[in-house]
Amino acid sequence: MNVVLVDPAELAPDGTVTLTDARAEHVRTVLGATAGARGRVGVIDGPLGTACVERVDGRAVVLRCDELAPAPPPRPRVDLLLAVPRPKVLKRLWAPLAQLGVGRILLTSAARVEKYYFDSHAVTPELWRTRLLEGLAQARDTRVPIVTVHRSLERLVANDLDRLSGDAHRLLADVELAGTERPLTVRDACRELRTDSRVLLAVGPEGGWRDDERALLGERGFTAVTLGPRALRTDVACIALLALAHEALEATAATRRAVAATKP
Amino acid sequence: MNVVLVDPAELAPDGTVTLTDARAEHVRTVLGATAGARGRVGVIDGPLGTACVERVDGRAVVLRCDELAPAPPPRPRVDLLLAVPRPKVLKRLWAPLAQLGVGRILLTSAARVEKYYFDSHAVTPELWRTRLLEGLAQARDTRVPIVTVHRSLERLVANDLDRLSGDAHRLLADVELAGTERPLTVRDACRELRTDSRVLLAVGPEGGWRDDERALLGERGFTAVTLGPRALRTDVACIALLALAHEALEATAATRRAVAATKP
Repeated sequence: MNVVLVDPAELAPDGTVTLTDARAEHVRTVLGATAGARGRVGVIDGPLGTACVERVDGRAVVLRCDELAPAPPPRPRVDLLLAVPRPKVLKRLWAPLAQLGVGRILLTSAARVEKYYFDSHAVTPELWRTRLLEGLAQARDTRVPIVTVHRSLERLVANDLDRLSGDAHRLLADVELAGTERPLTVRDACRELRTDSRVLLAVGPEGGWRDDERALLGERGFTAVTLGPRALRTDVACIALLALAHEALEATAATRRAVAATKP
Repeated sequence: MNVVLVDPAELAPDGTVTLTDARAEHVRTVLGATAGARGRVGVIDGPLGTACVERVDGRAVVLRCDELAPAPPPRPRVDLLLAVPRPKVLKRLWAPLAQLGVGRILLTSAARVEKYYFDSHAVTPELWRTRLLEGLAQARDTRVPIVTVHRSLERLVANDLDRLSGDAHRLLADVELAGTERPLTVRDACRELRTDSRVLLAVGPEGGWRDDERALLGERGFTAVTLGPRALRTDVACIALLALAHEALEATAATRRAVAATKP
């Protein structure tokens, strides 16, 4: 926990918040129980800043959030369209996704996704919100990824995708790669983006997208990208792809800044 | 399991191997139990290829490895110097490391590594070999990363590092980043490498390297690289860094090939 996240509803009008759960324990053991100590806080979906320990009442800790930034951090510029992986894999994936930074997560079905995955505990708002907040607290971010669940890829693509992630550049990564077509790397696929562009990464199920699904996504503007010849498990592929997409977007922004600086 | 890995000692002189464990189960359920079916095999630290199901005797499956490549796949060009993370995190990390491809893993102590981590099951050859083989079978590779354990960072750096990973370009990534010095990205740090260069990534403990450790590694030729402003947990940082290093090496090779192609 690199930042103590508080819900806006927990924040009293005077800027104090009373913690009694694991966060109180964290403040007492990491920041020390003494009044006057300072530490990082963040308001969920709001600004980051620092707070002062006002008092400790037994197990409860009262923080005064007196130095908050004027605005929340920007929403991460990468979205993820993810064919639901096995529940065990998905449970472990929520926190890493929030650590790396993702604006929106569209969980979808696919031909090779088992239907019962959707009924698992891993696909419940209670579980994913807890795990996403853990990831944000690690990464010092406050912006909770927006998660939506889609039981039909066809309906998602036809009815919802433009509304949910219409402005993003669409990249399609198969976990199982064909290898013959020499698709682009993430970096190459992001080279022409603007500095404020968003990217939507589609990651297929174990066993890969079916050809008709690949064609459907291709028709909707997805460009195939490769992670190289190694077949990665969904969770490893997601982490690798998010890291590559963020680096590619940052490199694009750096190049544009450098070009702009040379202009008279 | 995308490839059935067999130990050279299991291979009979006539090229057959008799499987009775989870691999036999995999062959029966995934490839089908019928004689004549073909599937991918790999000899551990040897060549990849395909094999034919010769016969099924109850639970045992006899494969004939009759189409193997003339040489093993190349050893991955990225090595990892890793301050031992919590046992729970390390246990989960072995397979992803092998999936992404790593030539050598140097596990080291550091000021912020708890000493008892070295006594955990996660730091035993039995556990890491099993998990690394799982990762290789997923990624269709045969080259088992070479793991060494070093209980002193000072001695590792002074006595062993040049011998174990002397030819690699050395990059230092803190999980907790200072943020003030604007270190290079992995891609930038790899821009000047040769096409056959190796990279050694040093990943610090939770809480980061101490300043004296950072200085020590700096003296031994490590260049600081950044993953951006987000503080990642060790496992997520390792996966992200390996993906970035492999992409950077591949991009360097592609650039050199393109330059070479323009020369008369």
